[in-house]
Amino acid sequence: MLPKKVKIVEVGARDGLQNESRAATVAVRVELIRLLAAAGLTSIEAGSFVSAERVPQMANSDAVLKALLADSEATVAGDSNAVAHPVEYPVEYPVLVPNLRGLDAALQAGAKHIAVFAAASEAFSRKNINCGVDESIERFAAVAERALASNLRVRGYVSCALGCPYQGEVATAEVARVAGLLRDLGCYEISLGDTTGVGTPGKARAMLERVAEVVPVEQLAAHFHDTFGQALANIYAALQVGVRVVDTAVAGLGGCPFAPGAAGNAATEDVVYMLDGLGIDSGVDLSKLRFAADFICAKLERPNYSKAAVALANRS
Amino acid sequence: MLPKKVKIVEVGARDGLQNESRAATVAVRVELIRLLAAAGLTSIEAGSFVSAERVPQMANSDAVLKALLADSEATVAGDSNAVAHPVEYPVEYPVLVPNLRGLDAALQAGAKHIAVFAAASEAFSRKNINCGVDESIERFAAVAERALASNLRVRGYVSCALGCPYQGEVATAEVARVAGLLRDLGCYEISLGDTTGVGTPGKARAMLERVAEVVPVEQLAAHFHDTFGQALANIYAALQVGVRVVDTAVAGLGGCPFAPGAAGNAATEDVVYMLDGLGIDSGVDLSKLRFAADFICAKLERPNYSKAAVALANRS
Repeated sequence: MLPKKVKIVEVGARDGLQNESRAATVAVRVELIRLLAAAGLTSIEAGSFVSAERVPQMANSDAVLKALLADSEATVAGDSNAVAHPVEYPVEYPVLVPNLRGLDAALQAGAKHIAVFAAASEAFSRKNINCGVDESIERFAAVAERALASNLRVRGYVSCALGCPYQGEVATAEVARVAGLLRDLGCYEISLGDTTGVGTPGKARAMLERVAEVVPVEQLAAHFHDTFGQALANIYAALQVGVRVVDTAVAGLGGCPFAPGAAGNAATEDVVYMLDGLGIDSGVDLSKLRFAADFICAKLERPNYSKAAVALANRS
Repeated sequence: MLPKKVKIVEVGARDGLQNESRAATVAVRVELIRLLAAAGLTSIEAGSFVSAERVPQMANSDAVLKALLADSEATVAGDSNAVAHPVEYPVEYPVLVPNLRGLDAALQAGAKHIAVFAAASEAFSRKNINCGVDESIERFAAVAERALASNLRVRGYVSCALGCPYQGEVATAEVARVAGLLRDLGCYEISLGDTTGVGTPGKARAMLERVAEVVPVEQLAAHFHDTFGQALANIYAALQVGVRVVDTAVAGLGGCPFAPGAAGNAATEDVVYMLDGLGIDSGVDLSKLRFAADFICAKLERPNYSKAAVALANRS
């Protein structure tokens, strides 16, 4: 039994761009996100309030967010002339927040929606954010508390949900435990990340079924990278267990920092093509998505990593 | 319920190479196939007895086949010094045969195994082989009859099983009808080809379930191209309905003649990686497969289109 509707959370402008070697300017990031919204995407990660020294590609995420929120206000006010690509529906612009300082900056920029993150792998957590899993959850508890008090929506990420580049196997019970902790912090949705794309459909299914014992499947998202070419099969397996939210990146933006040259996020175009074929409504217009993909690929001078996009471009 | 074992039919040296712009020499094709056999592949398409004018990449398939059959004889005779990469198990080397003339040539080269083909699309059949579907089946009836009388094994292909580049939709009933006709000619296995890779998992499943009403699922093979990035998801769907034979091409050799620059066959490495993760035995050693992939990619001066191969190369 597949879901009838799936929400795509477009992460190309954050998880994607932060793993591209070439940084995009604020203007390019804003235009990319506007084009993504115009293609029907209603949840688009807009940036990350991490240290610009650590992730220079995400510098000035405040400026990106402010521009987008100004769009929203102009749209609500009916001033469509002020908006490059007006859309008729509300668009969420979550931003990644690593700590209280990041939250303050996000709030100052007007953020209404943040994402926090923890790993299901102790080894990954220590390498990535220099503290253990439980300590990271404690830190995010303070972030989530203040964010919720400010009426923000808080999304949670669990990385290494299907394996870890340092410790290898990750127990599904640990993924479920960390997902449960993030839900308890007040996250409305938990995105389960196959950070290095090592998962295969049977493991994806087993992991999701185990996590769904703790967090209802309606609150889970599949965030599967395509490093080993498995993302679409894994997403199909996720749909089969009832997952209704899928994270993707237009043009397959990004890559895998643990495997240089390897593929990153599942390409939005490939996933939308699959959903269209399955008769699942995502609200995304594949032909309009091409404008966003062509735009960012030209700016970054890189090919489109979506096979569906390449095939459709050849067909037309 | 997934199968415990899956047979991979390696088509890189035929369906793959015939769609590469650069032709490989006989020596390269023989060495490629030897390396594929050494990696554990037991069914490897070795060539095609079509007109060398029409498909120059497959010229001299007789010489390729003769070299491989000499390997087999030397192996059976225990003369392992005579074989570059001796394998301990019997390997099938099917060759594509379009007509009686091709069959004669294949027989002269010592072929023990041939493949014949028909389309599930009338438009495709007329464009591709200049005759309608039923007329093509009649032609192949004579080929199959003589082949079977010569104790050859005969495999059948149905192309456009999930869609046609000329007529668009293809009815599952027509795929089932053509598959049944090929089975009636004496084909021991029917390989259902998504020739242009347009299929998605739900359509793959529906098509296979419909065909399995006519030809038992044990006799069906999934031959799904990755043009739209859907191959692995479609193969996973095929495994779920009980398909136990999958056609793939090492390094994703080939391409789509109807979409220049687009991806071709599902990459063997990606499929083996998925099967390994699913706990399904294919008998193929992913690390040895790399020798075959690296060899042919170097000879053709092209990248490896398998994402799993690229990720594994980065890891090691």
